[in-house]
Amino acid sequence: MSARVYLDHAAGTVVSPAARTALVEGLALTGNPSSLHASGRAARRLLEESRESLAASLGAHPGEVVLTSGGTEGDNLAVRGGWRARRAEGRDAVAVSTVEHLAVAATAAALAEDGGRVVGLGVDADGRVREDVWDRVDERVAVASVMWVNNETGTLQPLDRLVEACRRSGAWSHSDAVQAVGVLDVDFAASGLDLLTVSGHKLGAPVGVGALLVRREVRLHPVGSGGGQERDIRSGTVPAALAAALAAACAEAVAGRAEHRRRASELTGRLLAGLAASGLEGWRRNGGGEVSPAVVNLGFEGVRADDLLMLLDAAGIDCSTGSACSAGVVQPSAVLLAAGADEATARSALRFSFGPTTTAEDVDALLRVLPGAVRTARRVA
Amino acid sequence: MSARVYLDHAAGTVVSPAARTALVEGLALTGNPSSLHASGRAARRLLEESRESLAASLGAHPGEVVLTSGGTEGDNLAVRGGWRARRAEGRDAVAVSTVEHLAVAATAAALAEDGGRVVGLGVDADGRVREDVWDRVDERVAVASVMWVNNETGTLQPLDRLVEACRRSGAWSHSDAVQAVGVLDVDFAASGLDLLTVSGHKLGAPVGVGALLVRREVRLHPVGSGGGQERDIRSGTVPAALAAALAAACAEAVAGRAEHRRRASELTGRLLAGLAASGLEGWRRNGGGEVSPAVVNLGFEGVRADDLLMLLDAAGIDCSTGSACSAGVVQPSAVLLAAGADEATARSALRFSFGPTTTAEDVDALLRVLPGAVRTARRVA
Repeated sequence: MSARVYLDHAAGTVVSPAARTALVEGLALTGNPSSLHASGRAARRLLEESRESLAASLGAHPGEVVLTSGGTEGDNLAVRGGWRARRAEGRDAVAVSTVEHLAVAATAAALAEDGGRVVGLGVDADGRVREDVWDRVDERVAVASVMWVNNETGTLQPLDRLVEACRRSGAWSHSDAVQAVGVLDVDFAASGLDLLTVSGHKLGAPVGVGALLVRREVRLHPVGSGGGQERDIRSGTVPAALAAALAAACAEAVAGRAEHRRRASELTGRLLAGLAASGLEGWRRNGGGEVSPAVVNLGFEGVRADDLLMLLDAAGIDCSTGSACSAGVVQPSAVLLAAGADEATARSALRFSFGPTTTAEDVDALLRVLPGAVRTARRVA
Repeated sequence: MSARVYLDHAAGTVVSPAARTALVEGLALTGNPSSLHASGRAARRLLEESRESLAASLGAHPGEVVLTSGGTEGDNLAVRGGWRARRAEGRDAVAVSTVEHLAVAATAAALAEDGGRVVGLGVDADGRVREDVWDRVDERVAVASVMWVNNETGTLQPLDRLVEACRRSGAWSHSDAVQAVGVLDVDFAASGLDLLTVSGHKLGAPVGVGALLVRREVRLHPVGSGGGQERDIRSGTVPAALAAALAAACAEAVAGRAEHRRRASELTGRLLAGLAASGLEGWRRNGGGEVSPAVVNLGFEGVRADDLLMLLDAAGIDCSTGSACSAGVVQPSAVLLAAGADEATARSALRFSFGPTTTAEDVDALLRVLPGAVRTARRVA
């Protein structure tokens, strides 16, 4: 696989050497962190040191870090757990932007089975939550959830407005920051958020671990039941070795984020300038306003993105039609549809996303094949 | 830690070299198994090969393997997901034995919030589900859950009776087999069960991965929501590298289980004979009938188990007062109480559990200190 050009870091990035080392070292510790004996205490120590490191990297208190199996579980805990915790107060709704990842959107929708309501927070043509919708976060809302950076377009959301609306209405504020950590300056305390989701494999840790930051005053209802680990919010033996890997990856990603932003901006500029110079017509960058430098979503007129993806794949380039999490089903982008795109446009978008290991040569390799691939895709469309 | 004598394999055993190698190799594959490009397909291939291997080890079809973050999540999915799937049929109850792990017992109890009922299946003095309770598994029961091997006492449960009761009543049968895989001959198809929980760290894989086996005709309701991975039962990016580690550990544990049983029986015999020869009085083995050779639960008259645990810990021996999953809270054993023990007896029990790496020297080291520690604990009680 080493010959391939991997431009899908938003779906899962390279496991960092530091994370791998921390994981392997952690695996040598036999013992359940809940056990009382010395081996258990050693595992507990590794877990708590990892928790402290994660907290320090993210501007949180160690007691605010709930280890999870990944971003989807964190989002489920925040949305469903928040709603269940507060419905007795008469807060029967959750408010979510119309461009959330399925881990939030589907969780919110599923609450209907139990009598929950979804309040949609609509977006403008850039995919950014509109100024005129914040009144919808009212006293009936238990949790309002707006992602930090959109996973498909890279659009940044106005989290200050989210926090303000939640303070006014008494709702808890949640942000899926899976695409933000390691790119932007994510500081939980400074954000004013009540809940924030982190995923390991987006920032250099293995798939299968993540964290939900939970402000100390917030009492979520657990989604699962068992031994009552993690402040009784998340039961199950806590994976100390995976937590150590997450902490190591997160520390590295946070230390390197300014440099990653700078380099990703250059790569984005190189890609857009190269495309402009190629003479290819009928393309645009999707998502507007403030955008993550690590995500470039491009729309190509007269192209079905899955055709283009296959052509690029055959040329050795890995990219995405959007979220990788829909189990392989190619659909028009719900994010672009929500931002007002027509279905053809929403089917024409490809996402290229950069990680700390991405190089100018990767972008040049893409530029060598992309214009021709688009022309071929237009012929077969 | 290498100088310690680790006799708490039921709480978490040594990560096998094969599992560690599979994990590290898997981490080198960058790519989300749901991505369509070549890197994603390589991750998907590793995941599906791991699923096939797991299925082969456990007598299941690959399509019956749902990857989870561990035993607790599997139990939650089976009990809550099964109940939610079937309540519309008028099946408002789950039936669970009174000696289940909290991952089952607390999940069942939590259904009350949503209108669920728990039907308790009581046990005899050996901790085995009684013959006269199976009629309680009736047409109102959605799922009946009885563990394969009790985690505290090692007592085997009559799963043939569970399956029979479920076939009669139409309930789905579930067994938490976390303590059985790698010790007993666990064959999903031959068992007749509908649902079976496996945990990685009990059989040589890292903490943080497990599987729920789900018979093909069984349609669980998902507990969480998101991208719809794993037959739409368990959303979230599936950790291919952890799945590979689980598959490698499981294959090794299954291949070695007959030898592990033989050796563990010898170790159990050595421990019981050594204690008998020591002249110590006032002790007994808890749990009766057919018992896993890998678990020895001993009760000591006039002792508080947590005192004894601390004394053994100071002497370099790791063991447990029962389930490690209660986040460090020492309570009388709910399993022994359910089997009719009085509170003093339920507070006097220590569990010693053996893994494939346990040696006769480990048992001899325990025998050198245990009688003296019991006498000391009796003085301070």
